[in-house]
Amino acid sequence: PRTFVIIGGVAGGMSAATRLRRLDEHARIIVLERGEHVSFANCGLPYHVGGVIESRDALVLQTPQALAARFTLDVRVRTEAVAIDPTERSVRVRDLASGTEESIRYDALVLSPGAAPVRIPIPGVERGLVLRDLADMDAIIAAASTARRAVVAGAGFIGLELAENLRHRGLEVTVVEMLPQVLRPFDVEMAGLVAERIRDAGVELRLSTGLTAIEDGHVVVGDGETIPADLVVLSVGVRPESGLARDAGLELDERGYIVVDEHQRTSDPHIYAVGDAVVKQRFDGPASPVWLAGLANRHGRLAADAIAGTPHAAVPALGTAIIGLFGVTAATVGRTERELRDEGRDIRVIHTHPMDHAGYYPGATQLAIKLIIDAASDRILGAQAVGESGADKRIDVIATAMAGGLTASQLADLELAYAPQFASAKDPVNMLGYVADNLAAGERSVQWHELEALQADGWLLVDVRTEGENAAGAIPGSRLIPLDELREHAESLRGERVIVHCKVGQRGHTAARLLEQYGVTVANLDGGYLTWSAGVAATSPKGAA
Amino acid sequence: PRTFVIIGGVAGGMSAATRLRRLDEHARIIVLERGEHVSFANCGLPYHVGGVIESRDALVLQTPQALAARFTLDVRVRTEAVAIDPTERSVRVRDLASGTEESIRYDALVLSPGAAPVRIPIPGVERGLVLRDLADMDAIIAAASTARRAVVAGAGFIGLELAENLRHRGLEVTVVEMLPQVLRPFDVEMAGLVAERIRDAGVELRLSTGLTAIEDGHVVVGDGETIPADLVVLSVGVRPESGLARDAGLELDERGYIVVDEHQRTSDPHIYAVGDAVVKQRFDGPASPVWLAGLANRHGRLAADAIAGTPHAAVPALGTAIIGLFGVTAATVGRTERELRDEGRDIRVIHTHPMDHAGYYPGATQLAIKLIIDAASDRILGAQAVGESGADKRIDVIATAMAGGLTASQLADLELAYAPQFASAKDPVNMLGYVADNLAAGERSVQWHELEALQADGWLLVDVRTEGENAAGAIPGSRLIPLDELREHAESLRGERVIVHCKVGQRGHTAARLLEQYGVTVANLDGGYLTWSAGVAATSPKGAA
Ligand SMILES: Cc1cc2nc3c(=O)[nH]c(=O)nc-3n(C[C@H](O)[C@H](O)[C@H](O)COP(=O)(O)OP(=O)(O)OC[C@H]3O[C@@H](n4cnc5c(N)ncnc54)[C@H](O)[C@@H]3O)c2cc1C
Ligand SMILES: Cc1cc2nc3c(=O)[nH]c(=O)nc-3n(C[C@H](O)[C@H](O)[C@H](O)COP(=O)(O)OP(=O)(O)OC[C@H]3O[C@@H](n4cnc5c(N)ncnc54)[C@H](O)[C@@H]3O)c2cc1C
Ligand SMILES: CC(C)(COP(=O)(O)OP(=O)(O)OC[C@H]1O[C@@H](n2cnc3c(N)ncnc32)[C@H](O)[C@@H]1OP(=O)(O)O)[C@@H](O)C(=O)NCCC(=O)NCCS
Ligand SMILES: CC(C)(COP(=O)(O)OP(=O)(O)OC[C@H]1O[C@@H](n2cnc3c(N)ncnc32)[C@H](O)[C@@H]1OP(=O)(O)O)[C@@H](O)C(=O)NCCC(=O)NCCS
Repeated sequence: PRTFVIIGGVAGGMSAATRLRRLDEHARIIVLERGEHVSFANCGLPYHVGGVIESRDALVLQTPQALAARFTLDVRVRTEAVAIDPTERSVRVRDLASGTEESIRYDALVLSPGAAPVRIPIPGVERGLVLRDLADMDAIIAAASTARRAVVAGAGFIGLELAENLRHRGLEVTVVEMLPQVLRPFDVEMAGLVAERIRDAGVELRLSTGLTAIEDGHVVVGDGETIPADLVVLSVGVRPESGLARDAGLELDERGYIVVDEHQRTSDPHIYAVGDAVVKQRFDGPASPVWLAGLANRHGRLAADAIAGTPHAAVPALGTAIIGLFGVTAATVGRTERELRDEGRDIRVIHTHPMDHAGYYPGATQLAIKLIIDAASDRILGAQAVGESGADKRIDVIATAMAGGLTASQLADLELAYAPQFASAKDPVNMLGYVADNLAAGERSVQWHELEALQADGWLLVDVRTEGENAAGAIPGSRLIPLDELREHAESLRGERVIVHCKVGQRGHTAARLLEQYGVTVANLDGGYLTWSAGVAATSPKGAA
Repeated sequence: PRTFVIIGGVAGGMSAATRLRRLDEHARIIVLERGEHVSFANCGLPYHVGGVIESRDALVLQTPQALAARFTLDVRVRTEAVAIDPTERSVRVRDLASGTEESIRYDALVLSPGAAPVRIPIPGVERGLVLRDLADMDAIIAAASTARRAVVAGAGFIGLELAENLRHRGLEVTVVEMLPQVLRPFDVEMAGLVAERIRDAGVELRLSTGLTAIEDGHVVVGDGETIPADLVVLSVGVRPESGLARDAGLELDERGYIVVDEHQRTSDPHIYAVGDAVVKQRFDGPASPVWLAGLANRHGRLAADAIAGTPHAAVPALGTAIIGLFGVTAATVGRTERELRDEGRDIRVIHTHPMDHAGYYPGATQLAIKLIIDAASDRILGAQAVGESGADKRIDVIATAMAGGLTASQLADLELAYAPQFASAKDPVNMLGYVADNLAAGERSVQWHELEALQADGWLLVDVRTEGENAAGAIPGSRLIPLDELREHAESLRGERVIVHCKVGQRGHTAARLLEQYGVTVANLDGGYLTWSAGVAATSPKGAA
């Protein structure tokens, strides 16, 4: 029988191993795992810190014994692969308990070593904890049980999940982030909605602030200021565990991630790689790493398929990701406006603020949704959604539309399940399609960050909301003409350049259609007052501080 | 300016009117509505009966006054279109208050008259109430306020929503349904899960039972039995309000629904029609009516686009629909197994029972999902989902995949938003794709309704669950060999024909892969014990009674 060796026994590795067994009952399959556990729920770790997931055991989904019984897998924990010899097709393996080593020959090798938390080179970094596995989690829980004040460095997914869970345990928590926003896979005005929630929940958020040292009882940030902390967690990114691959001469990208083809094959035809250590082809844009469990599982299975002789090609990665914290959900797929503008791409952007279900049915809450579209082709390039309910559904639907190659305008045609407690007759996703269709047909819109320059250039800003709404907060320089009175003023605006705005963009659209037919050059402020406020708040010195 | 007349001022009609105004500021747009209200939330009506939606006003989304102010629409309520003269291009209109009539010439006419509840020809039918508009709702509420016992005839969406809401008000409720199941757009074993909930909630459900008379204080059903009732609601289907269209010589289908092309144009080039009165092209299968608000809204807009000279084609309808009642959600899209088997189509069917989110995160509940696939092409033909949480999301994703032309196996590649509180690393939809991929690759599965015949034909049934699970309930004629002991018995089964089963199909899959490699002819019982039990319960005389 053939021998298959798998390095890394969690998301990607164990998915490859079980699938391989189902495809080949007679092969010898050996899984090497440096840590104490295989098949554990990385994604659940932060929630045991906060006690949301009560049982530690619940995080360990499989044991070597169970995997042996069911799949005749030879699973070796506390066992490290220390070298690969591609010519000999063998792996050098060290039993970490005894220190003994042996070599194992393979017919095919799968690497799923993952990525390790980065430790930034600052004084006292060794005082900082990280979170990747159960041992790390145990250390954080132990520290948290005596700590009062925590600092989390890094406002990415894991950092924020940890911040929430430490807060949940009753600690005072400060999050320190180098970037001017939380959650890099979101644009600043969308991330700002999450930041607001974090602050409302009593977590101190310090953006545009670097951690410069960890000292006893406090950390030092950017300008020398100190923040008291008896627990410091570093969650500032990861680096691929590709040392073995590098030493074996496998092709890596410039950031050190392992390069594979669409069947997960590395530059060595007998070695496959999957998961966080691998660079992925992207739906739109350059190849890049994507650290997500779904892809690790999927690609693990694809590697097994290829090894067993029934290859399926991976599709380019969208990078769909989600976080729920302090009662709000933020989900994202594809590219951000920031990235695409940096690349000079010609895009259209839509912001909406629909209710998650019919407003007349109890419990409806407001979503903020963003859609990013390739201007020439109307292809969907990305989307983001933030809200208390239903953000996950809308991003999943849009991710599926992207996978199916639907254009933004075609979102209008989707038939999504509607009854008043679940959605609206025009689902928020349909509504994005309507707005996209109007833009594709030539309707002009203006982004929140473009407004000031256009006003300076002489465009009039007309607020078509009601007097009451205007009184409660208006954009500087705007003139109030409520929509239902706009017809009376339309002739007087003929020939002018006018930006109309309402609260969310919907009345602005009706206003724009109206004025245009009176010979006004008109644009609608995309997302209305709500998006403008969110953008301004998130980029003001106060928001960013 | 041109004159556009619209008959019917609710979902389809008013969507056409507002869009037309946005496209043509200067047209004369007249909306005729026979009833008291326009733009009301039909879909919310049942929930005001139960007091879930407290305010009656919340159900009226627009008024003629507001529509005049914003859209300069000439909206006439209590005004009926009584005849169309296609040659003259005029509509004869009656003011229902005064009885006066006038003729209005049109450049284009939009029909969105909807469909009216059917009144079955039985003695006492005039004692039965129906639910279509606010007046109907008021009548039901008035009757319910003094009634103790209600009978609802018809276990479709509206009938069941009403049953729930009457129960919610404290009435004793019996639902009487001619078919042997509730909710015709579902297959019987899926509908059975909803039926169970309805019964658990204390509603009496009488399937395969026709209403034969309504008498004072009771109704009479099929066999002459009487059921006490001081409130009777008929919700047994609708008929299209196509009398006007018929009289005008427009083409109707054999059931009386108005025939339109993909731009919603009837057989008269100046007359458009949308909504419940129209027969729709379907994604797969023959044209048919689809009584859904989303399509009425969408097609109303398309009619306006066509009239304004910027036509967009409608896409074939999927018929995505959903109901939530007594804490359970049931959603469906596309065709049912029942219909397709009746047509002799070669299909594959998958049932799964995944958790709506990671089992280790609190609050996970189990879904039942069904996927129906064209065997030759692997195209998705339909799906159904029932569960406490997340059914809407999965059906929306599958509906989107269908719209994008993804195959069933390609569901495995979807990148859906994953964090433990929202989904699993392999989302339930991905898992359907995995199962579909295995079936496409030749793995055999057996449906719950095929099992008995195969057993009779000599296939062995092997239960690969644990002893404990088997003891708690087993399929007649099965032999227990727990999965983890199956290898020891594999050789002894060589050459046999074996059906394996577990609880949901997942361990059965591993068992099937294993046995096949030992020369066993093997099939997996699709959906396992859970689907088999649901199917048997739903079709047993007791379940159907
Ligand atoms: C706290 C946390 C929360 C997360 N939350 C989410 C989430 O909500 N959603 C989501 O999609 N993703 C989430 N992720 C990311 C997800 O867990 C990863 O994308 C996924 O686990 C990657 O799988 P992998 O197989 O590449 O690596 P891993 O799952 O990290 O497994 C790699 C394993 O290889 C072992 N290994 C490495 N080198 C060797 C060697 N030389 N010899 C032997 N063994 C070796 C390591 O010990 C490790 O156990 C989270 C990750 C963490 C840490
Ligand atoms: C109780 C109930 C619950 C529902 N729940 C849902 C749900 O949860 N999800 C969903 O998708 N769909 C639901 N529907 C269906 C949805 O409401 C319809 O599909 C949609 O309203 C159809 O739109 P329409 O414009 O064709 O007809 P309608 O909305 O019925 O409007 C037609 C209007 O035309 C008027 N009319 C007819 N003939 C004339 C005439 N000759 N002159 C003047 N006026 C005329 C009628 O009075 C009527 O008001 C529900 C329907 C009901 C009744
Ligand atoms: C769980 C794990 C061991 C993989 O085991 P697995 O048996 O391959 O995966 P699952 O238990 O999810 O089962 C999937 C298999 O069952 C099949 N299946 C699932 N439901 C089924 C059903 N109802 N009927 C038939 N087959 C079914 C699938 O097709 C798939 O088999 P395939 O790969 O041969 O197509 C591995 O993914 C792991 O270690 N995960 C934990 C770590 C992790 O993922 N961390 C990150 C997230 S927190
Ligand atoms: C509400 C109703 C009057 C239609 O009015 P409408 O103005 O066309 O529709 P909406 O209020 O939903 O607004 C949609 C419009 O706003 C636009 N829009 C929505 N959000 C927007 C945003 N954030 N930015 C820009 N434009 C936006 C859409 O593009 C669309 O305009 P378009 O058709 O020109 O593309 C009609 O559908 C109706 O009567 N509904 C009630 C009856 C009903 O549907 N019953 C069944 C369900 S219970």
